[in-house]
Amino acid sequence: MSSITIAIDAMSGDRGAAIAVSAALDAVRENEALSVILVGQQSELEASLSEPHPRIRIVEAVEVVRMNERPSHALRHKQHSSMAVALRLVRDGEAQGCVSAGNTGALMAFGRSLLRMYPGIERPAIVKLIPSLRGRCHVLDLGANVDASAENLYQYALMGSLMAAAVNNLQEPRVALLNVGEEEIKGNEQVRLASHMLAQAENLNYIGYVEGSDLFRDVADVVVCDGFVGNIALKTGEGVASMLMELLDQTFTRTLYGRFIGWLARPTLTRLLKTIDPSRHNGASLLGLQGVVIKSHGNANERAMLAAIRQGYREVRLEVPRRINEQLDELMVY
Amino acid sequence: MSSITIAIDAMSGDRGAAIAVSAALDAVRENEALSVILVGQQSELEASLSEPHPRIRIVEAVEVVRMNERPSHALRHKQHSSMAVALRLVRDGEAQGCVSAGNTGALMAFGRSLLRMYPGIERPAIVKLIPSLRGRCHVLDLGANVDASAENLYQYALMGSLMAAAVNNLQEPRVALLNVGEEEIKGNEQVRLASHMLAQAENLNYIGYVEGSDLFRDVADVVVCDGFVGNIALKTGEGVASMLMELLDQTFTRTLYGRFIGWLARPTLTRLLKTIDPSRHNGASLLGLQGVVIKSHGNANERAMLAAIRQGYREVRLEVPRRINEQLDELMVY
Repeated sequence: MSSITIAIDAMSGDRGAAIAVSAALDAVRENEALSVILVGQQSELEASLSEPHPRIRIVEAVEVVRMNERPSHALRHKQHSSMAVALRLVRDGEAQGCVSAGNTGALMAFGRSLLRMYPGIERPAIVKLIPSLRGRCHVLDLGANVDASAENLYQYALMGSLMAAAVNNLQEPRVALLNVGEEEIKGNEQVRLASHMLAQAENLNYIGYVEGSDLFRDVADVVVCDGFVGNIALKTGEGVASMLMELLDQTFTRTLYGRFIGWLARPTLTRLLKTIDPSRHNGASLLGLQGVVIKSHGNANERAMLAAIRQGYREVRLEVPRRINEQLDELMVY
Repeated sequence: MSSITIAIDAMSGDRGAAIAVSAALDAVRENEALSVILVGQQSELEASLSEPHPRIRIVEAVEVVRMNERPSHALRHKQHSSMAVALRLVRDGEAQGCVSAGNTGALMAFGRSLLRMYPGIERPAIVKLIPSLRGRCHVLDLGANVDASAENLYQYALMGSLMAAAVNNLQEPRVALLNVGEEEIKGNEQVRLASHMLAQAENLNYIGYVEGSDLFRDVADVVVCDGFVGNIALKTGEGVASMLMELLDQTFTRTLYGRFIGWLARPTLTRLLKTIDPSRHNGASLLGLQGVVIKSHGNANERAMLAAIRQGYREVRLEVPRRINEQLDELMVY
């Protein structure tokens, strides 16, 4: 297997460079085919990297994009930021993919300006693989844009379908639109029009509308919505999961009997907690760019950052951008 | 305490009249101040009502609004439906509140046509009290309308604030807008404009934007969004909760050891399951109508239907419509 290099924007995000450095070390240790470029302030990165590693190198970037900085401001004034430099490494072929825990809007803006888009695609979307009991589901857009026209939704669906085919090795991914009800009469105008467009698309397995609860029922492989709705659905789901984990924790710590049961149940519960823990499902992809760009949670811990690096590696290895690029043309009818 | 009568649309919903009849019986048995009018096909209701009860009477309605019927069609052709007749009992003062598990759109349409709206309010919204670890949160709109202007969102916020004050006995409910990020720069146009309007409103404790995960963190008492977003957020949350309940169930049934622990943990887990179980949190209110109208889940079981009846009783007893009506005027600045 040939070697793959991932560039990590090590300075952005809420938690500082140490998290990115530790995750990078874990990542190269577990995977001999992976090299990492840490992008950021050299002195800080060297201090965090306790000992040098032959497959980790540092590329200096002096600026950092702030989490609440306007994307347009970042684009004008932060061309030497760790984020921009990491993306430029992908553009120049020094890395095949990039991971950042930084400002989503700025990452989108730099991504569009430094990497090319797929031909015919108007906007990138943020896509994430949502785990459930049975199967998994690619959901997009999760917040790249706060609104979406019918054409945008249609394009998200095509890209999502090709991504699901590549990542999950599916012949005909089931593609659905997220809506408020299953009946044909419901939904807003853009969603209804997008549904009409998708129904015309040959070579696409469009199955119609699904509801929020269907995200976890293995009803569809790809679920499409605008970024406002997608972001709120995702955050709500994470909120419920966190609340239930806390409840479970209380259940097994509040009383002496509860603690005893919790101790006995620990091995049994570990699998459950692994399934729920959001840090194990960190990493969303910027879909639409001709390159692998992974957005990590801003407050990702080490394990979560490692998950994002793994995801970047996987998408590069599966040649997701090349496969989407080659097949998008024949899918497009509009 | 004076007696309160709730009219139940016993024919709508997915599961038939027997559920509504059993729930009505449970409701009057547990609460001596409650009387119920069951509205629907007399023969069927009599057959389900094993024995007569002094505080349950039947009012005949021969038609039923179908779950996928267009609201406009129902309004024209189903004036003698159980849904319309139940609402007319509220209008005529024979009942003080109404519960239906039927078609949401039709319930809205009949509600608007048979009961008056609060003065100045353009559209009703669907509101629900979402449980969390600490505190509870009124969320609206959950799907009365698929889109909302800034004015609509503003009006939802005022009504939601007054409702939270009445139901949760709060002096100054914290009111927030649901958005994709906490920074002022994010969000779509309607939400940003509504935020500006709410910031001007005196006598309203507007705290700004919250994200989906904040719904369960006791950050706000009232969270406002359009019906498309609200419905999808709610369904997604319910989907996650169902998935985790199933996972928990698997954890304690899959292996012999797991079953043993599950048996020991049963009393400890019961409290957890009660907190999660959606059927215990059934019942959304149609807010904006001068009357108490509760929408139950279409596939509500007996316990869920009972929860919806209790909620109707509670809103009537707390005189929610009168209190909103009296105070709405002084809140409105637009």
